[in-house]
Amino acid sequence: MISTKARLGKDIVTKEGVIIEDDVIIGDSCYLDYGCIIRKGVKLGENSYVGPNCILGEFQMDFHNDRDSEYNPKSLTIGNNALIRSHTVIYSGSAIGRNFQTGHHVTVRENVEAGQNLRVGTLSDIQGTCKIGDYVNFHSNVHIAMYSKIGNYVWIFPFFMSTNDPIPPSEIISGCTIDDYAVIATKATLLPGIKIGEGAFIGAGSVVTKDIPSNMLAVGNPAKIKDHVSSLKHPETLEPAYPWKLRFDRGMPWEFDME
Amino acid sequence: MISTKARLGKDIVTKEGVIIEDDVIIGDSCYLDYGCIIRKGVKLGENSYVGPNCILGEFQMDFHNDRDSEYNPKSLTIGNNALIRSHTVIYSGSAIGRNFQTGHHVTVRENVEAGQNLRVGTLSDIQGTCKIGDYVNFHSNVHIAMYSKIGNYVWIFPFFMSTNDPIPPSEIISGCTIDDYAVIATKATLLPGIKIGEGAFIGAGSVVTKDIPSNMLAVGNPAKIKDHVSSLKHPETLEPAYPWKLRFDRGMPWEFDME
Amino acid sequence: MISTKARLGKDIVTKEGVIIEDDVIIGDSCYLDYGCIIRKGVKLGENSYVGPNCILGEFQMDFHNDRDSEYNPKSLTIGNNALIRSHTVIYSGSAIGRNFQTGHHVTVRENVEAGQNLRVGTLSDIQGTCKIGDYVNFHSNVHIAMYSKIGNYVWIFPFFMSTNDPIPPSEIISGCTIDDYAVIATKATLLPGIKIGEGAFIGAGSVVTKDIPSNMLAVGNPAKIKDHVSSLKHPETLEPAYPWKLRFDRGMPWEFDME
Repeated sequence: MISTKARLGKDIVTKEGVIIEDDVIIGDSCYLDYGCIIRKGVKLGENSYVGPNCILGEFQMDFHNDRDSEYNPKSLTIGNNALIRSHTVIYSGSAIGRNFQTGHHVTVRENVEAGQNLRVGTLSDIQGTCKIGDYVNFHSNVHIAMYSKIGNYVWIFPFFMSTNDPIPPSEIISGCTIDDYAVIATKATLLPGIKIGEGAFIGAGSVVTKDIPSNMLAVGNPAKIKDHVSSLKHPETLEPAYPWKLRFDRGMPWEFDME
Repeated sequence: MISTKARLGKDIVTKEGVIIEDDVIIGDSCYLDYGCIIRKGVKLGENSYVGPNCILGEFQMDFHNDRDSEYNPKSLTIGNNALIRSHTVIYSGSAIGRNFQTGHHVTVRENVEAGQNLRVGTLSDIQGTCKIGDYVNFHSNVHIAMYSKIGNYVWIFPFFMSTNDPIPPSEIISGCTIDDYAVIATKATLLPGIKIGEGAFIGAGSVVTKDIPSNMLAVGNPAKIKDHVSSLKHPETLEPAYPWKLRFDRGMPWEFDME
Repeated sequence: MISTKARLGKDIVTKEGVIIEDDVIIGDSCYLDYGCIIRKGVKLGENSYVGPNCILGEFQMDFHNDRDSEYNPKSLTIGNNALIRSHTVIYSGSAIGRNFQTGHHVTVRENVEAGQNLRVGTLSDIQGTCKIGDYVNFHSNVHIAMYSKIGNYVWIFPFFMSTNDPIPPSEIISGCTIDDYAVIATKATLLPGIKIGEGAFIGAGSVVTKDIPSNMLAVGNPAKIKDHVSSLKHPETLEPAYPWKLRFDRGMPWEFDME
């Protein structure tokens, strides 16, 4: 079902079972795969791909609280060249920049403001009301709590969890902050209100209970500061492996500049 | 496809692609969203919402063992006012009380007996054959092993795991028990047969290897008892933060009674 | 939509909304449930079940890089008697033996070579480019990184994570190896390049930073070798519980041989 009140660009592929509701705007050259659902008011940039059984513009709680009222969606805006893989759900009320990519079975809730080149891996769960910079990489199964603030060029690996409630359950919200270029290895946890400094490295399985300063390496449960990140060596060259931006450029804006 | 042998109440919305099989009973004012599947024999209470691509009454193993025999489903019963979000799968053979809510991509298997006001977050996985009380809250990505027993007013946070096999793989089953008002912070694990006492608090990342008495705080891997839960203070008032029932009422039966 | 260029065997059930693309080959007596999608070139063995909203033969990155070119799929081959539960996504370019089973919301990416009787639990994520032996059991939410090598009769429990990059992000890939009969309890993590020896047992929540020899028990973060696996006793008989193959046979090739 494609609404006659939707505005579709040129050269759009719509496979069997696609749903496009009223007031949707879709840019040129998009590919909408089997059975994806684009709810009322979504704006999707050109050359984007939406996988099977995805939902864009998912209902927020106000719809469920009163399904009989006229549904007045907050817009969801996604920039050009998005690649949204199957079974992903993105709520209304968020704005995501260009070159957005997701894996499968991802959830992104409302009030997320994200920059360009965000990548969100399979089974990740962005709980909403958070701010994410440019060129951020969430690997699979990354869980971002509400009220998190994430800078640019941040890498977060699987089974990460940020939290926000110091005495659950409560009405206190104390979001975490992760600054530019930080790297958080697999299965790390941030307790409520923690701040990870620019370029810091958090080791696998760490539970971070205190703020970690810029460019420091922290490991353990509770995480302890071990050294400067430059103490981590490249296993072959034995040169300092961090800051990583001096040695890695795939998909980064400085790609092809390095020698 | 809506079976003529299904019994639908009044004022039901069925969006494109909905499947309703034989002998399904659906209460008044339900909203069945795009492509949800309600298998044979399911009973869904009035004023419920079922999201896109959900499956209610999912096949148990007996169907797969003999697909050619007449399929004789155990009933799935879900009470009034359910809110079941997209891509959720709930097996036949369970019974869930009123005001049930799920996030997205949830799985609930067979032989689950759950009370009213159960909330199960995105990506949670209830493995079946367990008993869950009233007003229980599972946040995202909570994994409940078979043969778990969970009381009333329990809170469990993401990446929780209860286990049941002391020498895996084996045929021994030793389920965990979590008593009323207990709070289990993110990424905790319970070893097989563990009992968490009423009102206990388990810290983030803990691996619980011994029973925890009522109203005690336990933290670490292996988890050690640290103090009474009242030692955890509200960060602003500095009053004891637990028992939480004395200071928190959102969504609880005593909501609006507090002053 | 069932392509006229697909080759379907006898006695195949295709429920509403099934998509079968060109050059698909499906064996006799398969059951294709509501809305499953079988992309170009997939070969599925006889007597298999594919659940609602599954995708077999999912696109690899080359398709997304150039959607306008003729899509030239690598084949996905799945053996006889597969049981693939709902919302599972399996990429093109993999080959999986007979008696394959998945839970719900599973992802298996490209270049996976797996033997017979592989079971992959709900929400598991096999990241591709890995080799998996016969009779391997992944419980729910198991995450296998690229370049992992897994032997035969291996058991891995929920929230497992294998890794492969020693200085993330980098272009170095150092996959993990898990040998025959190893058992890895819930929430264990393997650091890049780790080798788990035959019949070893890794305790719940362990972070393994060094290779573990055959038949050894290792526990903790970082994991330390504690003893021979035979030190783990059966809780009732008090006999050594490992090697498990001497006391457990359900679903194993030696089932019905034991007395």
